[in-house]
Amino acid sequence: MSTPKVAIVPASTDDLENAVRAGGGEPTDAAADADALVWINPRDPDGLRDVLKGSPARWVQLPFAGIESFFAAGVIDPDRTWTCTKGVYGPACAEHALALMLAAARRIHEHLRKKKWRDGGFGSPERRLEGDTVVIVGTGGIGSALVPMVEPLGARIVGVNRSGSPLAGAERTVAVDRLSEVVIDADWVVIAAASTPETHHLIDARIFELMKPTAWVVNVARGELIDTDALVAALRARSIGGAALDVTDPEPLPEGHPLWELEEAIITPHVANTWDMAVPELTAMVERNVARFASGEALEGLVDPAVGY
Amino acid sequence: MSTPKVAIVPASTDDLENAVRAGGGEPTDAAADADALVWINPRDPDGLRDVLKGSPARWVQLPFAGIESFFAAGVIDPDRTWTCTKGVYGPACAEHALALMLAAARRIHEHLRKKKWRDGGFGSPERRLEGDTVVIVGTGGIGSALVPMVEPLGARIVGVNRSGSPLAGAERTVAVDRLSEVVIDADWVVIAAASTPETHHLIDARIFELMKPTAWVVNVARGELIDTDALVAALRARSIGGAALDVTDPEPLPEGHPLWELEEAIITPHVANTWDMAVPELTAMVERNVARFASGEALEGLVDPAVGY
Repeated sequence: MSTPKVAIVPASTDDLENAVRAGGGEPTDAAADADALVWINPRDPDGLRDVLKGSPARWVQLPFAGIESFFAAGVIDPDRTWTCTKGVYGPACAEHALALMLAAARRIHEHLRKKKWRDGGFGSPERRLEGDTVVIVGTGGIGSALVPMVEPLGARIVGVNRSGSPLAGAERTVAVDRLSEVVIDADWVVIAAASTPETHHLIDARIFELMKPTAWVVNVARGELIDTDALVAALRARSIGGAALDVTDPEPLPEGHPLWELEEAIITPHVANTWDMAVPELTAMVERNVARFASGEALEGLVDPAVGY
Repeated sequence: MSTPKVAIVPASTDDLENAVRAGGGEPTDAAADADALVWINPRDPDGLRDVLKGSPARWVQLPFAGIESFFAAGVIDPDRTWTCTKGVYGPACAEHALALMLAAARRIHEHLRKKKWRDGGFGSPERRLEGDTVVIVGTGGIGSALVPMVEPLGARIVGVNRSGSPLAGAERTVAVDRLSEVVIDADWVVIAAASTPETHHLIDARIFELMKPTAWVVNVARGELIDTDALVAALRARSIGGAALDVTDPEPLPEGHPLWELEEAIITPHVANTWDMAVPELTAMVERNVARFASGEALEGLVDPAVGY
């Protein structure tokens, strides 16, 4: 195909239209006439379904990597090719995971709440990451971007993924059915996996029981990977060190939820990858994928309906 | 000298005595009979003076890098060789600087204080360090350890030191008399220099005026390098983005000090390098330096009385 027509919906932007052109495509307002469709609202699967009803688009680009709500809504039909931004937001989310780990290690949550000098000397609880074991659950864009960020701090890395295929830079990588073996030694359990039926409540009461009483769980993926009730119980019992969460279940985390008040919980409101961080990455990906689509090459970020991401 | 006698004062520990032996020395309780002296109380220059009065020790090892109070007390006499731990605590302090920068960038201070979900979407103020300019003032142990920690995040580094001699990994390094030129472009000004008469209030009202309104100052060195009143004024006027301080002037920061209440200030109570983090590094350094002393080699961490650190 020489010049594919690409519709950017529900609302186009100059940057995305320029990306379509730079990739060798032609922006169009008419989804009904489009060869491909870039959907830029991460929260409206129903709106996308309506648009697709009248569109012959053979390829749909989604704007985020966490597309479980689009699967749940049944929008992702196998007759079209689907891509999401898996991978491209990895560095932004990994940096947030690092920020949460270091805030916990350096007790920034305690100091910010206390608003009072604590005399130092012996027994100060702040920690370094040197020599710590960081278990990274999910070795895609986020997990692999996190490795070079924690390496300079002297931490050991253990990867966990579906297949056990090696995470570059990790001391070892195990398949998820061996998660319980590796969390025992973890100082940090970082959740960076997609939300699928298989990963629902992957981190549950049993995992919290196995974790060291000093270990923290860090979640920059999806709230549903953690059993929130079990987490609250573990924090209350001090059977784990703490939890630093950018994503929660339920989300938004309602006012009055116990996680807001627990001393060893750090909550940020799903800001690991903000819209401002995402736009340049999404725009660059659209350009690359339009070019691949125009020349018939395999697209980047292909969604696999069989695994749900 | 075959087996130097080394006194560990005011109180010895098994670890340090073992380090002395491993370095080829002999621990002694008697400072009056010692060839060398390891002083392990970072806050008592007067006590050290008393001990030294009756000691022939030709070398004194101090336990910390920030030894300005020992200079001020006039303890550091030129008739002996003095070493401090300059350099060896660099990685611990640099990690704390990174923790403070990321807490600020990811607005962890805001989220911890708000205890409330903030709906995301457009305009979320969280930032990445990618493409940011980090000006590191002081390129010794802390500054040089910080470089490989911020590099993976995609930040550009500018070094500032007395001579302008290049900081490895920095895009460029300038002499401190050109500080005002480089702070203009800084997104982060990280203070990692020794406290000396020359660096007193190095960061003052003039520097804050030059800084971008979004830029943060981060101090993991000594409070005296910043003019606190000027900092409070700059934060109130929002002429800089914020301040993340592990050290303050006065220190401890008294209750009710405005820095505790300013929204864009993050204070930690001098915990970048805690005693627990320091002990292994100090112990290893004592072993290395005793070995050098025994064989007549140049010692590590030599104090230069002419520059005050």
